[in-house]
Amino acid sequence: MRDERLSKLARVLVDYSVEAGEREQVVVSGGVAAEPLIKEVYARLLDAGATPIPQVSLPGMQELFFGHAKDVHFSQTPSIVRSIYEEADAFISIMSPQNTRALAAVDPQKQQALSKRDKEIQEIVLGKDRWALTLFPTEALAQESEMSLADYEEFVFGAMALNEDDPVRYWEEKAKEQQRLIERLEQADEVRISGPDTELTMSIRGRKFLNGDGTHNMPCGEIFTGPVEDSVNGEVFFGIPVAVAGREVSGVKLRFEGGKVVESSAEKGEEYLNAMLDADEGARYLGELGIGTNYGIPRATKNILFDEKLGGTVHLAVGRSYEKTGGKNESSVHWDLICDLREGGELYADGELIQRDGAFPDYDFG
Amino acid sequence: MRDERLSKLARVLVDYSVEAGEREQVVVSGGVAAEPLIKEVYARLLDAGATPIPQVSLPGMQELFFGHAKDVHFSQTPSIVRSIYEEADAFISIMSPQNTRALAAVDPQKQQALSKRDKEIQEIVLGKDRWALTLFPTEALAQESEMSLADYEEFVFGAMALNEDDPVRYWEEKAKEQQRLIERLEQADEVRISGPDTELTMSIRGRKFLNGDGTHNMPCGEIFTGPVEDSVNGEVFFGIPVAVAGREVSGVKLRFEGGKVVESSAEKGEEYLNAMLDADEGARYLGELGIGTNYGIPRATKNILFDEKLGGTVHLAVGRSYEKTGGKNESSVHWDLICDLREGGELYADGELIQRDGAFPDYDFG
Repeated sequence: MRDERLSKLARVLVDYSVEAGEREQVVVSGGVAAEPLIKEVYARLLDAGATPIPQVSLPGMQELFFGHAKDVHFSQTPSIVRSIYEEADAFISIMSPQNTRALAAVDPQKQQALSKRDKEIQEIVLGKDRWALTLFPTEALAQESEMSLADYEEFVFGAMALNEDDPVRYWEEKAKEQQRLIERLEQADEVRISGPDTELTMSIRGRKFLNGDGTHNMPCGEIFTGPVEDSVNGEVFFGIPVAVAGREVSGVKLRFEGGKVVESSAEKGEEYLNAMLDADEGARYLGELGIGTNYGIPRATKNILFDEKLGGTVHLAVGRSYEKTGGKNESSVHWDLICDLREGGELYADGELIQRDGAFPDYDFG
Repeated sequence: MRDERLSKLARVLVDYSVEAGEREQVVVSGGVAAEPLIKEVYARLLDAGATPIPQVSLPGMQELFFGHAKDVHFSQTPSIVRSIYEEADAFISIMSPQNTRALAAVDPQKQQALSKRDKEIQEIVLGKDRWALTLFPTEALAQESEMSLADYEEFVFGAMALNEDDPVRYWEEKAKEQQRLIERLEQADEVRISGPDTELTMSIRGRKFLNGDGTHNMPCGEIFTGPVEDSVNGEVFFGIPVAVAGREVSGVKLRFEGGKVVESSAEKGEEYLNAMLDADEGARYLGELGIGTNYGIPRATKNILFDEKLGGTVHLAVGRSYEKTGGKNESSVHWDLICDLREGGELYADGELIQRDGAFPDYDFG
């Protein structure tokens, strides 16, 4: 009944990602479907002398909220919820939807109003910088990924390196190798991405790369920065479909001039793509360049938590940049699109080859 | 799939028991097995403009706590938990165990340590006086009551008057009739209970009766006071078995002299009975006299939430009295034992018949 890999995942989250210590209060949030993992994390936190604060959600509650909430419910975050987040030392969040399309009929404006209401909560969490986001395999997620649950479990646990004897050590090693790559890229001025229907250049001069080492996302395996906003030029094809707000967008092509998207098309979801790009001034500029290094993920599944880490891909986000990278783009949008370099692609830094056909000749990402 | 009686129960709890108002924060706690009722209460609170704060527990978490907690976890209530209770305006708690014997192997001392740690939480809840405790039928509770789940649902919903068109009105009417009885009893000095192996007298002079009107317990249907501590004399037989701390105690006989239990025996669980009576000085004195008025409960099920309200029974608690009744007995114990008057029993106040063979000739309790 019990999968040893879940207790390994609990150790990764508790000991490595948030480093829970004695008397610290750690909020553990997840759906009831994540019960086995919630319990492993709960026990591990107690073993560490920390105090778990479980916040378990029932399927269907969000729909009920949107169905019954009045204006007053969108006006401010309940003080109790704010207190929970203010007093907590760290956060472990487990995605485990029982229906990935449950909010399909909910007015997007209401969803945005709730996000806006709870923006301060997100800022509290980000400000403390001790948060980990992970996923527990459910039938709904397996379905979304077009796999049986058993196959999806193998997919998820493989991506998280839970078949390793010591996954904490695995992520520490991965982080070191990523740091080597970061040190090289932070010396470079120009990045060039070349591939099918893709020929794009951008400056990363003076920008910082962040190391996606598994302390915030599990699985992880990426490094990312914010490119110089007006330096992006050329064309890019995003060969990996993305699911966003309950719809699919695929075959996206963008052309940049002086940093700005000046042409855009998509095989599927073009209307949505253009609506996003028109959301505000910053939505046509890049906020992120990310490089995936996770070779434990065999293929894309339209789940951004996994896809953006795919070894052999790079991702570009239109919209808001992360302040810590030195990026300056502001937007209400931050939308990751993934460019597959595994078949005939190349990534260069100041003319030196970093990655070809999805492989890094100078780095060992396993 | 949906039982209309659950939305009635939600209305009783939200509109009548805690009277939730606009912008009030109401903690709704229950196990995942209570999902259908939690959702009804959640929606009803939103409809009332109140903010539900669901606190959902997973089966097995308590055992995990006792299995992994260290001394530090017993030393104080986590500050987040305290904040939740301090900031809430009202509380709705739903019992819905998936195993009523889950804690059978847990050291009672640890259980007491946790109760002691969280005593301040209980005081906060009692101090606000806006709390309701109810039950959602589960297989485990049905099993404990020796019924199928379907039969148990009928039992529970019947006891809560949820087959009535307007259960709120039902409980309001019941409360009025109970108030009539209270006014009569508060005039009286002496209560006499007579029945099989039972001949007991006690003074209630100057004591207050509280009206169990469904605002705190659902189901309800009882009135109760604290008798004058040294006034209890005679013998009483408790014909209804009780389940307590995972064991059964039945066939209890007590003899009182000058308020104190001077002889005690039980057909089953005598050792436990005597341990309870020896817990402290106050444990041999009565803290409560209660009179059940709920005729929607057809029989005893070893669940005190129901049994003590059984129409035609009275219950006596050894140990601590409720301050609001004027009772003065102090003890760490408060243990309800139930005396069945339905076959050959009588209850008198100053020599006037109040109840005979389980029926109240002057009152209409339905």
